[in-house]
Amino acid sequence: MSRGIRRDKFLLELARRRKSIRRFKAGVEIPLARVLEAIEVALEAPSGMNCQPWQFIVVSDRELKHRIRIACEEAEKKLHGNVRGEFKKWLEQRNITWEKPFLEDATYLIIVYADKHCPYTIQSTWLAIGYLLLALEENGLASLTYTPPDAEKVNSLLKVPKRYKLETIIPVGYPLEEKIKEPREPLINKVYLNKWGKRIILKTMNT
Amino acid sequence: MSRGIRRDKFLLELARRRKSIRRFKAGVEIPLARVLEAIEVALEAPSGMNCQPWQFIVVSDRELKHRIRIACEEAEKKLHGNVRGEFKKWLEQRNITWEKPFLEDATYLIIVYADKHCPYTIQSTWLAIGYLLLALEENGLASLTYTPPDAEKVNSLLKVPKRYKLETIIPVGYPLEEKIKEPREPLINKVYLNKWGKRIILKTMNT
Repeated sequence: MSRGIRRDKFLLELARRRKSIRRFKAGVEIPLARVLEAIEVALEAPSGMNCQPWQFIVVSDRELKHRIRIACEEAEKKLHGNVRGEFKKWLEQRNITWEKPFLEDATYLIIVYADKHCPYTIQSTWLAIGYLLLALEENGLASLTYTPPDAEKVNSLLKVPKRYKLETIIPVGYPLEEKIKEPREPLINKVYLNKWGKRIILKTMNT
Repeated sequence: MSRGIRRDKFLLELARRRKSIRRFKAGVEIPLARVLEAIEVALEAPSGMNCQPWQFIVVSDRELKHRIRIACEEAEKKLHGNVRGEFKKWLEQRNITWEKPFLEDATYLIIVYADKHCPYTIQSTWLAIGYLLLALEENGLASLTYTPPDAEKVNSLLKVPKRYKLETIIPVGYPLEEKIKEPREPLINKVYLNKWGKRIILKTMNT
């Protein structure tokens, strides 16, 4: 617990800088090692019973990325045909359609699987994904967590055993354009003290 | 995506240092601001439809921590009475019983709730918990993710609306003793390239 190597607020800086990117520069080469370095960070995450339920498939092959895109877009077309209400509005405001060019344009896809037989497998895996996103950002790489509505075709393309569940696909690369980070609620709305609804007075921040 | 402020492998260092701590120094005072700073990092995490489904209750009150401990230990006694097989062995090897003194000894408990009405609420919340654990470590604070077998009593003590689900209780403080981090699988066992089972040759790490 040495505080000697603490670098003040580096994580806050990193977390604030990191935003979800949906458009990537196509055809960019990035050393695989930079992606693996970020995954190394994720592997240090805690997990239920230290089961380490995660498995990562890094996809760099162009043809395979193309096939994954096609498989996901087929599932998306079905979903978008049925979308209604708030979700439909949210998608339209952000120009999110069934098209997923990021699955092909991103230099890498990191496909994250969770072992269904482990305790707290979803929780542990997503905790590790939190580590991973920050580590990708530290390594200068943009990312997104994208979960296809139906993963069966992707699992079959990658020959994944039934025991594993696709949790998310993380496209990784350089952003095509700068975008503004979606706003976050301020701390005062998201943290209570000792009881639900009891707000923290902001001056306590300076204690 | 400027790489100018990158600090080489700080996250790897942080993630490797961070380990789950089950015994805390009792009676230690820590400024609340140090905990809130870590939560600020978590609030920057991405979430499904940017719903930010998380809510954090920071518990500092001694009497309340004691009551939470009692409530959780009651649920644990029932669970431990029924535990069998692998899980029983795992618990015994680590000396994990129904007793949860960390719920009382830790300076703070951060209780994390997820809004059941948000999309990908568990996934988003645990991703943010990943951010939080790293940020606590950066701030020199030890932590654990502990999920009680039954959260009803805790929810009622804290007056939490039914819409929210207790995801985890994170005791935060100084460790009572140094412990060795549980070992992690090496990268080579956890990452495949382009297809399930296709291992990455380690020399590609140097590309």
